[in-house]
Amino acid sequence: MTEKQARDHAAITDLFACWADANRSKDIDAIIALYSPDICAYDAVAPLQFKGISDYRAHWEKCMPKDADMIIEMQTPVIRVSGHLGVAHFLIRCGIRDNDGGEQASWMRASFHLEKHGGQWRIMHEHFSVPFDFDSGEARFGLEP
Amino acid sequence: MTEKQARDHAAITDLFACWADANRSKDIDAIIALYSPDICAYDAVAPLQFKGISDYRAHWEKCMPKDADMIIEMQTPVIRVSGHLGVAHFLIRCGIRDNDGGEQASWMRASFHLEKHGGQWRIMHEHFSVPFDFDSGEARFGLEP
Repeated sequence: MTEKQARDHAAITDLFACWADANRSKDIDAIIALYSPDICAYDAVAPLQFKGISDYRAHWEKCMPKDADMIIEMQTPVIRVSGHLGVAHFLIRCGIRDNDGGEQASWMRASFHLEKHGGQWRIMHEHFSVPFDFDSGEARFGLEP
Repeated sequence: MTEKQARDHAAITDLFACWADANRSKDIDAIIALYSPDICAYDAVAPLQFKGISDYRAHWEKCMPKDADMIIEMQTPVIRVSGHLGVAHFLIRCGIRDNDGGEQASWMRASFHLEKHGGQWRIMHEHFSVPFDFDSGEARFGLEP
């Protein structure tokens, strides 16, 4: 890995640490600042896709829990970079913890395409999901890595 | 876009045309030839992930329908390249058509990380999914783009 690639790896690692912290503190402005205005997102929750940051921000505002804490537990991202393009993927345990300490959380899969413009990495595309069961067709929450 | 980037775009477009054709003809060897031996795949179907081509090939063999035709209808991929790294994402209608012409198919989301080695693009990571419903938690088959 070149010195430039190592710096880009470190910058993308930092971006996901910021993303996770902003989720835990429910800071939607800080989350949205990490995305390109042209984001195309495939979220774990319907619809099929979100195009553009305004559409995606409205979805974040709808989904962020008001009366519960966020649970965000990430595995170490697998990161690749070349020039101004970067990618990452990892498993992530997402969910909520209510005021009584009860947890509703599940391991999910997360994949990202990033671009660097003006020295800043931004997420161009993200894809979150839980798989479904081959036989029943039901979403499989509760799987363990 | 430079001439090299245009050639890489075209090569990745061709790769996905091959992938779709190999799916329609249920040619698992031809599908598997497009993946890196080190593939990490998040499929629409559980488990959470597949690591390595042997593990993923076994999954393809389990999921490929014996007595039905494959339905594969892809939107135009969004492709980005820089040096030896490429990405793509698109919506895809996948499913089966049985001998009576009955269809079981759904629009899904597909995202990819690719690398070029020895002049050949290969898929390092792929992520297929259907989203779930925010309120019911059920997988949302049948959504339209």
